[in-house]
Amino acid sequence: MTQPVKPLLNQLTAELKAAGFASGQIIMADESRACYGYDATRQSADPMLVLLPESGQQVETAIKLAAKRKLKIFPRGAASGMSGGSIPSSDGIIISLTRMNRILEIDQENMIATVEPGVVTGELQEEVSRYGLFYPPDPASLSFSTLGGNVAENAGGPRAVKYGVTADYVMGLEAVLINGETIKCGNKCVKSVSGYDLTSLLVGSEGTLAVITKILLKLVPAPESVKTSLLAFPSMSAAALAITAMFKNQISPSTIEFLDHHSINAVRETLPFSLPAAADTVLLVEIDGSSTSVMAQSQKLKKLFENKALLLIEARDEGERAQLWTARRRLSPAIANLAPHKINEDIAVPRAAIPAVIARLEQLSARIALPIVCFGHAGDGNIHVNVMLDKNDPEQAQRGVKAVDEIFAITLELGGTLSGEHGIGNTKSAYLDKEWSAATIAAMRAIKQAFDPENRLNPGKIFPTPGSQPCH
Amino acid sequence: MTQPVKPLLNQLTAELKAAGFASGQIIMADESRACYGYDATRQSADPMLVLLPESGQQVETAIKLAAKRKLKIFPRGAASGMSGGSIPSSDGIIISLTRMNRILEIDQENMIATVEPGVVTGELQEEVSRYGLFYPPDPASLSFSTLGGNVAENAGGPRAVKYGVTADYVMGLEAVLINGETIKCGNKCVKSVSGYDLTSLLVGSEGTLAVITKILLKLVPAPESVKTSLLAFPSMSAAALAITAMFKNQISPSTIEFLDHHSINAVRETLPFSLPAAADTVLLVEIDGSSTSVMAQSQKLKKLFENKALLLIEARDEGERAQLWTARRRLSPAIANLAPHKINEDIAVPRAAIPAVIARLEQLSARIALPIVCFGHAGDGNIHVNVMLDKNDPEQAQRGVKAVDEIFAITLELGGTLSGEHGIGNTKSAYLDKEWSAATIAAMRAIKQAFDPENRLNPGKIFPTPGSQPCH
Repeated sequence: MTQPVKPLLNQLTAELKAAGFASGQIIMADESRACYGYDATRQSADPMLVLLPESGQQVETAIKLAAKRKLKIFPRGAASGMSGGSIPSSDGIIISLTRMNRILEIDQENMIATVEPGVVTGELQEEVSRYGLFYPPDPASLSFSTLGGNVAENAGGPRAVKYGVTADYVMGLEAVLINGETIKCGNKCVKSVSGYDLTSLLVGSEGTLAVITKILLKLVPAPESVKTSLLAFPSMSAAALAITAMFKNQISPSTIEFLDHHSINAVRETLPFSLPAAADTVLLVEIDGSSTSVMAQSQKLKKLFENKALLLIEARDEGERAQLWTARRRLSPAIANLAPHKINEDIAVPRAAIPAVIARLEQLSARIALPIVCFGHAGDGNIHVNVMLDKNDPEQAQRGVKAVDEIFAITLELGGTLSGEHGIGNTKSAYLDKEWSAATIAAMRAIKQAFDPENRLNPGKIFPTPGSQPCH
Repeated sequence: MTQPVKPLLNQLTAELKAAGFASGQIIMADESRACYGYDATRQSADPMLVLLPESGQQVETAIKLAAKRKLKIFPRGAASGMSGGSIPSSDGIIISLTRMNRILEIDQENMIATVEPGVVTGELQEEVSRYGLFYPPDPASLSFSTLGGNVAENAGGPRAVKYGVTADYVMGLEAVLINGETIKCGNKCVKSVSGYDLTSLLVGSEGTLAVITKILLKLVPAPESVKTSLLAFPSMSAAALAITAMFKNQISPSTIEFLDHHSINAVRETLPFSLPAAADTVLLVEIDGSSTSVMAQSQKLKKLFENKALLLIEARDEGERAQLWTARRRLSPAIANLAPHKINEDIAVPRAAIPAVIARLEQLSARIALPIVCFGHAGDGNIHVNVMLDKNDPEQAQRGVKAVDEIFAITLELGGTLSGEHGIGNTKSAYLDKEWSAATIAAMRAIKQAFDPENRLNPGKIFPTPGSQPCH
């Protein structure tokens, strides 16, 4: 820590304590602060101070005291984000929301949970399941990600094809603005059109507009049963046609994951079942709902594809279900064997554009002589694109960076978007103007300016800063 | 028209024509302009000029030419709004979007329609049904309301309980800002987290932030079948418990309309079936989906309530379905017989609060000695509250105004909202600060200021203006 900062910090700390912060809620030691500077992108930075508020009131206090000194504020959940959304700067204060982790209410009649932002996603899911209720969003990090972070990044997951993303479940918020005032938006009403929809604006705003301190989440009745099937097709376009056919035939899967042929080859030998040699694309399909509905839809699925698919396996019990999922679960470690490093992008395209995007990525892979492995959420068009390379080879690293430029160009050309579920953060901000026009970005910046005129709240995220470089 | 305005209008008109507007797209005559000054609230005002653009480009042109003279702009669809959202002022220009009424694309594979804002809601529904697709939002005005108006007001309808409201279907927009620039937001991707969610911000912003010129709407597979049932209960709380029981038992109705005992009495004699004398609350329940699922859910419904309900009628065909709906359809004309006038508010509360709000409104009715008739969307907590009175009696009129104050106070006390589906417009703006704190309204106003610094776009809506009076 640089010397001139110390007196400022000492004074700020004294004021925080006078306002009720306990010593354990203020982290100044170098080695402890370092634990709050990283995220899942493996970037890291060293904040000047870390605060662990335990109430919305304490968040207000912290922000007001920081405002007097015009200090930057970086809100943070579990830091499982994939786009650098929670990376601080050395002249900023981390507000970690992890101690605000209480489930405040499970309103069974209205099917709404009220939670603090630090509640872990999976813990809420477990808790509501005791009441026969279900919170569907299922980001891969759900066993440690916090709901506040999910809301800030508008987290998705495999179940989005049927159930939507986090935004579809946030009914209301309390959040502290950079001036230290708390706003309340939304409510427990299914319908509400009273003023601007601040709730939806804050969802996915990546901590740049307000610090979320309370969340109202819609719940749904827990599905009675789930049926998992694995289907193999000879091509990506055959798989895509199959997905369209499902929707047309009133089959509404909760999950349609896909593996491309690279992914299949990476896991083939490790699977507890055998895949036909001609399998180019595998779909993992889950159907959930009432028992009768699941049975009827599964029968339809079987009838539709038992002759068209190269393979159709239907899990008969939880054990078999787990077996089918091994293909998907073993992917990340398996493809890690293909090369020392990977560049992982979470593009999304309109669902029907998946075959086109995969074909274009194949061509790109051939041109740059680097494997590109694709898997992800076929039902909602969200593809995890992995460029496999050795970053220690400067020439390969350069081709990798060029690959990312082209991946985004292809995606946008096909009507897609830079990020399906990870957000822009600081890793994709340099590409923002490839997706949106100057007028659209100006409108977004005007909102940022209206909420945070001094650009002190999570600065450097979403909007490109002069000289900012994409980070892979 | 006042004399000083004429030269300005003549010059503006000349510029519009030079920029490509045809004479028929510019309305100046007094009697024709008057046709664009009213809405469903029966307010009316006389705009200085009415323009009928036929493209987004022409909307840009009109707004840019108006900007040079700092003229106010009032966007307008079919003006079927219930809160005065499209009422102009005499120093403003109407931009009527009714000629931009083309369905630009029905993308069957991605299940997305791209439309101009002037397309009539029901016409889109009819068109997509030819492809086996379904656009669920069903405001009562759907046979004449435009989709642009639906988006601006975030229109609801009976099907919201299962399918959500207009906001849940808007995937993207093109809109012209008050500076004449077009922004594009959203896309055809199910998942997209790239920058702020401008789409959701514009939905329900009542034409105060931008003029919508293009809309991307999500479609869903058309349900194979629909089953309609009518259930009668001895009390509102018995009916509310029944609704909770439906959700708990995996019954997911597309519609749950309710009639309170005043409503029942108003239509009882006109119905093609007889209602038990003890019937205090009637529910009209529709279940839709695949044939098997509808059958299974209907059987569950019957099993659950055939002993608990005072009456359970299940429609066996379209004719019987229409008969059950007569109770709901005849309501508006029937209650009109109860008094010369009615004050109609569309409050919404958390679903479980319906019995409490109805009980409190009963007490209020007794206290002010005016009948209060309630019906509406029980599944989503959106209640149409009708205070029946004779406005020509000044003393009654005064009690009516007081009743509205109390209706809103009760609603907000029970966690509800000023408007479920009609919006704030100019009729409820005086109540906005009863629902939202000063900090929340300041955040909304900051957004308005960021988008429209001169307050020229649909001014006087949502935010209370000094001296503004509620309008009933």
